[in-house]
Amino acid sequence: MYVSVSRLRVPANASEELIAAFRRRAHLVDDAYGFVDLQVWRSDRDAGDILMVSRWHDREAFKAYMRSAEHRISHERIDPQLQALIKLEALEHLHTYDVVAE
Amino acid sequence: MYVSVSRLRVPANASEELIAAFRRRAHLVDDAYGFVDLQVWRSDRDAGDILMVSRWHDREAFKAYMRSAEHRISHERIDPQLQALIKLEALEHLHTYDVVAE
Repeated sequence: MYVSVSRLRVPANASEELIAAFRRRAHLVDDAYGFVDLQVWRSDRDAGDILMVSRWHDREAFKAYMRSAEHRISHERIDPQLQALIKLEALEHLHTYDVVAE
Repeated sequence: MYVSVSRLRVPANASEELIAAFRRRAHLVDDAYGFVDLQVWRSDRDAGDILMVSRWHDREAFKAYMRSAEHRISHERIDPQLQALIKLEALEHLHTYDVVAE
Protein backbone atom coordinates (compact mmCIF):
# COMPACT_ATOMS: atom_id res chain seq x y z
CA MET A 1 0.00 0.00 0.00
CA TYR A 2 1.11 3.55 -0.68
CA VAL A 3 0.17 6.58 1.41
CA SER A 4 0.31 10.27 0.59
CA VAL A 5 0.05 12.71 3.50
CA SER A 6 -0.41 16.41 2.84
CA ARG A 7 -0.08 18.64 5.90
CA LEU A 8 -2.13 21.77 5.38
CA ARG A 9 -2.01 24.88 7.51
CA VAL A 10 -4.96 27.27 7.54
CA PRO A 11 -5.90 30.06 9.93
CA ALA A 12 -7.88 28.39 12.74
CA ASN A 13 -11.01 30.31 11.77
CA ALA A 14 -10.84 28.90 8.21
CA SER A 15 -10.67 25.32 9.44
CA GLU A 16 -14.41 24.67 9.28
CA GLU A 17 -14.58 26.10 5.78
CA LEU A 18 -11.80 23.82 4.58
CA ILE A 19 -13.50 20.77 6.12
CA ALA A 20 -16.79 21.77 4.50
CA ALA A 21 -15.03 22.07 1.15
CA PHE A 22 -13.71 18.53 1.53
CA ARG A 23 -17.21 17.32 2.30
CA ARG A 24 -18.60 18.74 -0.89
CA ARG A 25 -15.68 17.60 -3.01
CA ALA A 26 -16.26 16.29 -6.52
CA HIS A 27 -15.48 12.67 -5.60
CA LEU A 28 -13.56 12.29 -8.84
CA VAL A 29 -10.78 10.42 -7.07
CA ASP A 30 -13.10 7.68 -5.84
CA ASP A 31 -13.08 5.91 -9.19
CA ALA A 32 -9.37 6.34 -9.85
CA TYR A 33 -7.47 3.14 -10.53
CA GLY A 34 -5.78 1.90 -7.37
CA PHE A 35 -7.48 4.37 -5.03
CA VAL A 36 -8.18 2.96 -1.56
CA ASP A 37 -9.50 5.80 0.58
CA LEU A 38 -9.12 9.42 1.63
CA GLN A 39 -9.43 10.85 5.10
CA VAL A 40 -9.05 14.33 6.48
CA TRP A 41 -7.62 14.53 10.00
CA ARG A 42 -7.63 17.62 12.16
CA SER A 43 -5.45 18.11 15.20
CA ASP A 44 -7.10 18.02 18.62
CA ARG A 45 -4.88 20.83 19.81
CA ASP A 46 -4.71 23.09 16.78
CA ALA A 47 -7.72 23.45 14.49
CA GLY A 48 -5.57 24.96 11.75
CA ASP A 49 -3.40 21.84 11.48
CA ILE A 50 -4.97 19.45 8.99
CA LEU A 51 -3.70 16.25 7.41
CA MET A 52 -5.12 14.96 4.17
CA VAL A 53 -4.32 11.26 3.97
CA SER A 54 -4.90 9.25 0.81
CA ARG A 55 -4.13 5.58 0.44
CA TRP A 56 -3.38 3.78 -2.81
CA HIS A 57 -2.60 0.27 -3.92
CA ASP A 58 0.84 1.37 -5.02
CA ARG A 59 2.95 4.36 -5.98
CA GLU A 60 2.14 4.00 -9.68
CA ALA A 61 -1.59 4.39 -9.05
CA PHE A 62 -0.98 7.57 -7.05
CA LYS A 63 1.33 9.02 -9.69
CA ALA A 64 -1.15 8.27 -12.48
CA TYR A 65 -3.90 10.09 -10.60
CA MET A 66 -1.68 13.10 -9.93
CA ARG A 67 -1.19 13.44 -13.69
CA SER A 68 -4.90 12.99 -14.49
CA ALA A 69 -7.52 15.46 -15.64
CA GLU A 70 -9.62 14.43 -12.65
CA HIS A 71 -6.95 15.69 -10.27
CA ARG A 72 -6.65 18.98 -12.09
CA ILE A 73 -10.43 19.46 -12.14
CA SER A 74 -10.70 18.68 -8.42
CA HIS A 75 -8.13 21.33 -7.61
CA GLU A 76 -9.71 23.90 -9.88
CA ARG A 77 -12.95 23.59 -7.92
CA ILE A 78 -11.36 24.97 -4.74
CA ASP A 79 -12.64 28.45 -3.98
CA PRO A 80 -9.80 30.91 -4.74
CA GLN A 81 -10.36 32.77 -1.47
CA LEU A 82 -10.08 29.54 0.50
CA GLN A 83 -7.14 28.41 -1.61
CA ALA A 84 -5.32 31.62 -0.71
CA LEU A 85 -5.57 30.71 2.99
CA ILE A 86 -4.19 27.19 2.59
CA LYS A 87 -0.50 26.66 3.02
CA LEU A 88 1.01 23.27 2.22
CA GLU A 89 3.44 22.69 5.06
CA ALA A 90 4.65 19.25 4.15
CA LEU A 91 4.00 16.51 1.67
CA GLU A 92 5.05 13.03 2.60
CA HIS A 93 4.97 9.84 0.63
CA LEU A 94 5.11 6.67 2.60
CA HIS A 95 4.82 2.99 2.15
CA THR A 96 2.36 1.30 4.37
CA TYR A 97 4.80 -1.18 5.64
CA ASP A 98 2.32 -3.41 7.26
CA VAL A 99 -1.35 -3.48 7.93
CA VAL A 100 -0.84 -5.25 11.19
CA ALA A 101 -4.48 -5.32 12.24
CA GLU A 102 -7.66 -4.24 10.60
CA MET B 1 -13.03 8.55 14.64
CA TYR B 2 -9.88 9.29 16.60
CA VAL B 3 -6.35 8.89 15.28
CA SER B 4 -3.06 8.66 17.14
CA VAL B 5 0.11 9.17 15.11
CA SER B 6 3.50 8.41 16.64
CA ARG B 7 6.48 9.52 14.60
CA LEU B 8 9.44 7.32 15.37
CA ARG B 9 13.01 7.93 14.36
CA VAL B 10 15.47 5.05 14.16
CA PRO B 11 18.88 4.76 12.52
CA ALA B 12 18.17 3.73 8.90
CA ASN B 13 19.92 0.39 9.43
CA ALA B 14 17.54 -0.42 12.33
CA SER B 15 14.46 0.21 10.24
CA GLU B 16 13.98 -3.40 9.12
CA GLU B 17 14.37 -4.62 12.67
CA LEU B 18 11.68 -2.23 13.90
CA ILE B 19 9.29 -3.30 11.15
CA ALA B 20 9.96 -6.96 11.95
CA ALA B 21 9.19 -6.26 15.61
CA PHE B 22 5.85 -4.76 14.64
CA ARG B 23 5.09 -7.84 12.59
CA ARG B 24 5.61 -10.16 15.51
CA ARG B 25 3.76 -7.93 17.96
CA ALA B 26 1.54 -9.47 20.63
CA HIS B 27 -1.71 -8.34 18.97
CA LEU B 28 -3.09 -7.40 22.36
CA VAL B 29 -4.53 -4.17 21.01
CA ASP B 30 -6.69 -5.95 18.44
CA ASP B 31 -9.31 -6.82 21.00
CA ALA B 32 -9.29 -3.48 22.78
CA TYR B 33 -12.65 -1.76 23.03
CA GLY B 34 -13.03 0.83 20.27
CA PHE B 35 -9.91 -0.21 18.36
CA VAL B 36 -10.22 0.17 14.57
CA ASP B 37 -6.83 -0.58 13.07
CA LEU B 38 -3.09 -0.02 13.26
CA GLN B 39 -0.71 0.62 10.41
CA VAL B 40 2.99 1.27 10.24
CA TRP B 41 4.11 3.64 7.51
CA ARG B 42 7.68 4.17 6.40
CA SER B 43 8.90 7.11 4.40
CA ASP B 44 9.87 6.53 0.79
CA ARG B 45 12.79 8.89 1.13
CA ASP B 46 14.09 8.12 4.60
CA ALA B 47 13.93 4.55 5.93
CA GLY B 48 14.50 5.77 9.49
CA ASP B 49 11.31 7.87 9.46
CA ILE B 50 8.39 5.73 10.58
CA LEU B 51 4.82 6.60 11.48
CA MET B 52 2.72 4.34 13.67
CA VAL B 53 -0.91 5.17 13.01
CA SER B 54 -3.69 3.77 15.16
CA ARG B 55 -7.37 4.53 14.68
CA TRP B 56 -10.06 4.37 17.33
CA HIS B 57 -13.76 4.92 17.56
CA ASP B 58 -13.20 7.86 19.87
CA ARG B 59 -10.72 9.48 22.22
CA GLU B 60 -12.09 7.65 25.27
CA ALA B 61 -11.33 4.26 23.73
CA PHE B 62 -7.77 5.32 22.97
CA LYS B 63 -7.23 6.70 26.48
CA ALA B 64 -8.62 3.55 28.10
CA TYR B 65 -6.20 1.41 26.10
CA MET B 66 -3.26 3.62 27.01
CA ARG B 67 -4.01 2.96 30.69
CA SER B 68 -4.47 -0.79 30.22
CA ALA B 69 -2.30 -3.71 31.23
CA GLU B 70 -2.33 -4.82 27.57
CA HIS B 71 -0.58 -1.60 26.52
CA ARG B 72 2.03 -1.97 29.23
CA ILE B 73 2.66 -5.61 28.34
CA SER B 74 2.99 -4.77 24.63
CA HIS B 75 5.62 -2.16 25.39
CA GLU B 76 7.53 -4.42 27.75
CA ARG B 77 7.96 -6.93 24.94
CA ILE B 78 10.10 -4.54 22.89
CA ASP B 79 13.70 -5.66 22.83
CA PRO B 80 15.70 -3.25 25.05
CA GLN B 81 18.44 -2.91 22.44
CA LEU B 82 15.90 -1.96 19.78
CA GLN B 83 14.05 0.28 22.22
CA ALA B 84 17.29 2.18 22.86
CA LEU B 85 17.49 3.03 19.14
CA ILE B 86 13.93 4.36 18.89
CA LYS B 87 13.35 8.03 19.41
CA LEU B 88 9.80 9.35 19.60
CA GLU B 89 9.93 12.52 17.55
CA ALA B 90 6.30 13.54 17.73
CA LEU B 91 3.01 12.29 19.02
CA GLU B 92 -0.12 13.68 17.45
CA HIS B 93 -3.73 13.16 18.30
CA LEU B 94 -6.20 13.98 15.62
CA HIS B 95 -9.83 13.70 14.87
CA THR B 96 -10.69 12.04 11.66
CA TYR B 97 -12.84 14.79 10.45
CA ASP B 98 -14.37 12.93 7.63
CA VAL B 99 -14.03 9.60 5.93
CA VAL B 100 -14.86 11.07 2.59
CA ALA B 101 -14.40 7.89 0.62
CA GLU B 102 -13.66 4.35 1.59
